Amino acid sequence: MVATGYEAVPAVAPGAVPRHDSLVVMKFGGTSVGDTERLRAVAERLAAARDAGHRVVGVLSAMGHTTDELLDLAHAVSARPQPRELDMLVSVGERVSCALCAMALIDLGHAAVSLTGSQAGIVTDTVHGKAKIVEVRAQRIHEALDRGEIVLVAGFQGVSTESEVTTLGRGGSDTTAVALAAALGAGTCEIYTDVEGVFTADPRIVPAARKLDRLTYDEMLELAASGAGVLQLRSVEFARNHGVTLHVRSTFTGTDGTWILEEDERMLEKAMISGVAHTLEETVYRVEGVPAARLFSALADAQVNVDTIVQTGPEIVFSAPDGDRVAAAETLDGLGARWSATEDLGKVSVVGAGMKSHPGIAAKTFATLEAAGIEPRVVSTSPIKIACHVGRDEVERAVVALHEAFALQVAGGRSDG
Amino acid sequence: MVATGYEAVPAVAPGAVPRHDSLVVMKFGGTSVGDTERLRAVAERLAAARDAGHRVVGVLSAMGHTTDELLDLAHAVSARPQPRELDMLVSVGERVSCALCAMALIDLGHAAVSLTGSQAGIVTDTVHGKAKIVEVRAQRIHEALDRGEIVLVAGFQGVSTESEVTTLGRGGSDTTAVALAAALGAGTCEIYTDVEGVFTADPRIVPAARKLDRLTYDEMLELAASGAGVLQLRSVEFARNHGVTLHVRSTFTGTDGTWILEEDERMLEKAMISGVAHTLEETVYRVEGVPAARLFSALADAQVNVDTIVQTGPEIVFSAPDGDRVAAAETLDGLGARWSATEDLGKVSVVGAGMKSHPGIAAKTFATLEAAGIEPRVVSTSPIKIACHVGRDEVERAVVALHEAFALQVAGGRSDG
Repeated sequence: MVATGYEAVPAVAPGAVPRHDSLVVMKFGGTSVGDTERLRAVAERLAAARDAGHRVVGVLSAMGHTTDELLDLAHAVSARPQPRELDMLVSVGERVSCALCAMALIDLGHAAVSLTGSQAGIVTDTVHGKAKIVEVRAQRIHEALDRGEIVLVAGFQGVSTESEVTTLGRGGSDTTAVALAAALGAGTCEIYTDVEGVFTADPRIVPAARKLDRLTYDEMLELAASGAGVLQLRSVEFARNHGVTLHVRSTFTGTDGTWILEEDERMLEKAMISGVAHTLEETVYRVEGVPAARLFSALADAQVNVDTIVQTGPEIVFSAPDGDRVAAAETLDGLGARWSATEDLGKVSVVGAGMKSHPGIAAKTFATLEAAGIEPRVVSTSPIKIACHVGRDEVERAVVALHEAFALQVAGGRSDG
Repeated sequence: MVATGYEAVPAVAPGAVPRHDSLVVMKFGGTSVGDTERLRAVAERLAAARDAGHRVVGVLSAMGHTTDELLDLAHAVSARPQPRELDMLVSVGERVSCALCAMALIDLGHAAVSLTGSQAGIVTDTVHGKAKIVEVRAQRIHEALDRGEIVLVAGFQGVSTESEVTTLGRGGSDTTAVALAAALGAGTCEIYTDVEGVFTADPRIVPAARKLDRLTYDEMLELAASGAGVLQLRSVEFARNHGVTLHVRSTFTGTDGTWILEEDERMLEKAMISGVAHTLEETVYRVEGVPAARLFSALADAQVNVDTIVQTGPEIVFSAPDGDRVAAAETLDGLGARWSATEDLGKVSVVGAGMKSHPGIAAKTFATLEAAGIEPRVVSTSPIKIACHVGRDEVERAVVALHEAFALQVAGGRSDG
């Protein structure tokens, strides 16, 4: 039995139907369900929440490396696996986790049922591999919850408006969980993962990195977009748009993790800089001779994940993951653009809602990088973020230097100096 | 490219829609799709049939040991995996094969689509793990065939009348294939396997065993029921009831295998004894004090696969697989029966449609066993079969002796002597 941090809901009178007990959506990632032993631990965690009187919906990812193994099979039979069939293939991973977890729960003496994305009513558009949820028809989930069952929903997948199996793209289980929390009216969506929460920087690079207790949606969005891998960007957007509080926490401990919720004054005073995020494997393109609208529409059609866009003159500069290089090059050539690319870059981003009310963060960021002998190639900012593309081999030094400069190991950080 | 044995359908005039080309259902078992290389070979075989002008429906089993591996996972999380969840779990295996095969076909330049049992319209009753097909709603298959696509259908599974995923039990992919052949009006259902057809005995025990060119449904039913593992019993029943000709043949060669079809006079003259089948791991129960109807109704409810039933006095004798021992014992105790069980038995069966018109087969069978020093414990017969339960360690000797006695290595056999 693992600790859960749940408060027991007051018992209801015998015979009364506890229809208004609180509903909780608990999402467990691939590491959390990495083997059958861990799956049983997840089942115990779900059971504890149910025992405390909650209506419980679990959203599970595929076990460990299942999805990668399925992709390996696909590439063994086809040079370019067809997207519709790829979705039929990889969607089985979450179904396996959920069925096993339901069995484990039933073994523990609880009523439970697993549902595919389709059975759970996750309706998406028709874009295979990167489908977007357009509607949640939660009738079957409600019926199961009304019967007192713990409901396990296969993450990452749905059924399209054309009755085809679709997947939401990597990390899509987060989006499934948030969409369900929104549709079911759950106040909180708990995201269980193999780390204790969101940190001020990657602890593998900055050992002094500190777990953040709270973040605003905007901060989490910037961090997720800037490389903090703990949550998928779309799931945070979805949570913000539907007012779902997220709680990112460890599968393996009972302690609180990081809460992600609407900004309030109290938080503003506390957090100036929330963290330093980074990505590796960025390519920066410099393009001339194509109107921006036409350029980015073509790149979107080619499924290139454009990240940063900056323009100060006739030249348009944008970045995209190294993995999208072939698609980007084909698109740019197809448009007849004059273009060049700088590969082997990374990006370091300083993120904080407090930035809005504290000038001087940009200056300090540049001074810190300069002192470390690092020259930014591209700079882009938002109201709560400063991002600098730097050489890939300079990224780690930049993260360490900025974490230190903003004293992020101390709660609240500091902007002076 | 593998040899296929298909005759090319005459080419249609340009612009004409070949709506009336012949439809073929081709079923491939787990060994045939054992790895990605074999899956690609299966794809080539399906493609060759399509290239020859046929409308092609492929029914695939799960790859190699996938189903067993999934069952191992289930037993790792639950002592008694719940049947509904078990079906959710194990049904993914065939879905993986089909999606991979569709990708491989598309890679070969063919249009193809994979369908789950549910998408293919295989509607079953609600008995998880051993569901029966009640209807095939083939609309989606017809649409895909009309678009010229090769359709891959996940074997072994369907969707129940209560919208739950069901499985048809071990070997259920054969039944899927036959049901589709019947529903789609395909004249022949091809069952591809890792042997060249149905043999007069297990070639591992009788090296001189001979491949049979033709069998009647009844003979195949008796052989399947008596341990010839090449076809599932229910699929043969289904084929007989719907007039679907079966062709059991090798995945790895282009030669004809064994045709299973309606009895005709010509066949009667040819085949007297078709083969000797055997099973191991049989337990024989002797029961008193319970009416037969009540006894077998209770055993059916407990999912005990009762095989032979014989009764000559107050004692009811029946056999069932060793694997059902716990369920059988619980049922018998629950009924308050007086009972005993003999374990470690096997069964050897002599099968042949010609038996009906040739008396003396029983006598010869008993004489052969007696000469080999083997004493049958239970004997049961049908018009075309004589079955004897013998000690498990006597089964192989009995098979060899009977195969030799009936000269089955020679086409037609002989009943004299």
